[in-house]
Amino acid sequence: MGGRHLARVIPGEKACKEERMLVIGERLNGMFLDVRKGIQEKDKSIIQKVALDQIKAGANALDINVGPASDKPLEVMVWLVEAVQEVTGITLCIDTPKFDVMKAGLEACKNPAIINSTKGEEEKLDKYMPLAREHDASIIGLCINEKGIPKDVNGRVETAALIAMKAMEHGVDTDKLYIDPIVMPANVAQEQATIVLDAMSQFKMLSDPPPHIVVGLSNLGQGALERELLTRTWIVMGVLNGLDAAIMDADDEEMKKAFITAELLMNKAIYSDSYIKAYSASHNYQQ
Amino acid sequence: MGGRHLARVIPGEKACKEERMLVIGERLNGMFLDVRKGIQEKDKSIIQKVALDQIKAGANALDINVGPASDKPLEVMVWLVEAVQEVTGITLCIDTPKFDVMKAGLEACKNPAIINSTKGEEEKLDKYMPLAREHDASIIGLCINEKGIPKDVNGRVETAALIAMKAMEHGVDTDKLYIDPIVMPANVAQEQATIVLDAMSQFKMLSDPPPHIVVGLSNLGQGALERELLTRTWIVMGVLNGLDAAIMDADDEEMKKAFITAELLMNKAIYSDSYIKAYSASHNYQQ
Repeated sequence: MGGRHLARVIPGEKACKEERMLVIGERLNGMFLDVRKGIQEKDKSIIQKVALDQIKAGANALDINVGPASDKPLEVMVWLVEAVQEVTGITLCIDTPKFDVMKAGLEACKNPAIINSTKGEEEKLDKYMPLAREHDASIIGLCINEKGIPKDVNGRVETAALIAMKAMEHGVDTDKLYIDPIVMPANVAQEQATIVLDAMSQFKMLSDPPPHIVVGLSNLGQGALERELLTRTWIVMGVLNGLDAAIMDADDEEMKKAFITAELLMNKAIYSDSYIKAYSASHNYQQ
Repeated sequence: MGGRHLARVIPGEKACKEERMLVIGERLNGMFLDVRKGIQEKDKSIIQKVALDQIKAGANALDINVGPASDKPLEVMVWLVEAVQEVTGITLCIDTPKFDVMKAGLEACKNPAIINSTKGEEEKLDKYMPLAREHDASIIGLCINEKGIPKDVNGRVETAALIAMKAMEHGVDTDKLYIDPIVMPANVAQEQATIVLDAMSQFKMLSDPPPHIVVGLSNLGQGALERELLTRTWIVMGVLNGLDAAIMDADDEEMKKAFITAELLMNKAIYSDSYIKAYSASHNYQQ
């Protein structure tokens, strides 16, 4: 069990002993039909509604992905970033595998930004870390190397160590580093669930300040009948092993209750009988 | 993160890779009105119904406690044990702080028995371990010493180590040993939730075979508004840190789903889309 920090009392935030989960809403993605429609019709209001709905549901960052179908990904990314920035100053998670799209997205981004993502390959890290530094952006490093996703704990930790080392080498504050251990679907790679958890428990020792840990939660339950149950069970285990950010469906009430409760049991908030309401009030969202 | 054993495939039990949670039903306790009525009216049928209902709900052991009101605890314990044994051969958990009541309960018990419990005090262990050996019973050792419940991780691990040492000294197979780290109510002792989890992650290293870990789950949510949510969140964390037995409300469907899913993610059962149904079928209870 690693990854628990000492309680940090933030002045003026009585109910918050320590940093809570960064909930990165997953819905601003061109693979969803409403977002695709908004992009195709250049209708900002659709995009802005999806953004605000997620914030109301509890997202404190928004993933932005042009989706698979776009033939002008660079222009669409810039347009999406600008549309969202008109209605919120929240952190934007620029989600693209293309370097030029990432660069354009970051340049358009006035809000705090997260680069989503770079792989854990030396050559890529030497391109993306300077980009993060230049834009004062946070950055997600995936535990994927030249050979793919390492199948064991050591392989994931080694890849994470390379990512952390490269961040430090390029002067990126490791407090702005998010390592993604790559959660895999439980129905096809069941044994990976605990391999990921074991690896995570070592990530927090890689640097000081420790890197954050982020996952794309939807992968875990992909194709499974008990998708939601699997996901909200895993997130509790994740919190225990240092998970502090997740790209997720911000509308999943039971999942939010699960991680809010897990964080309460980890002593990250002061107990009150109405701790769920206290969380949504202090995070300014509508329960 | 400790306490995970290597997967153990039991021949003929295709769906079970490893030992699953021992669910000890908590309802046969004189503090519940129906059980008290059964005791007072010497009506075995009431007791037997409570026993069978818990087994139907998924209990694979039954706690038996005469309750606080009885003035003849020894006779009542023997009567309860005999009443339950008439309808089931399931493991009985003889729950009393009185040595003579424990002895009488064990003598009456033809079913597999668990001594619930001894404290982690040298003098008590030197009385209870020989009793366990004599009756070939399993035994629960509480992390409570002469000074009370240790408030920190080390204190709990030291007490657990004494319990394990005394088991070995008296020839009790450590596979029959259950250590209870003592879960405390989250609303008054919030920081204890993770102290308990941290301690648990070390218990499995105390002996070979490792001791089991048991908790009385109801304590955690005592007096809390979100009692069930707190309990089912904690049990997931518990499973990750080696929890393999719990005295609980066998009727709490959401809690059962939580630990069944946690064990699935720990690779203790083979994934299938209907893994919840597969569990209840293989454990012969009615979902």
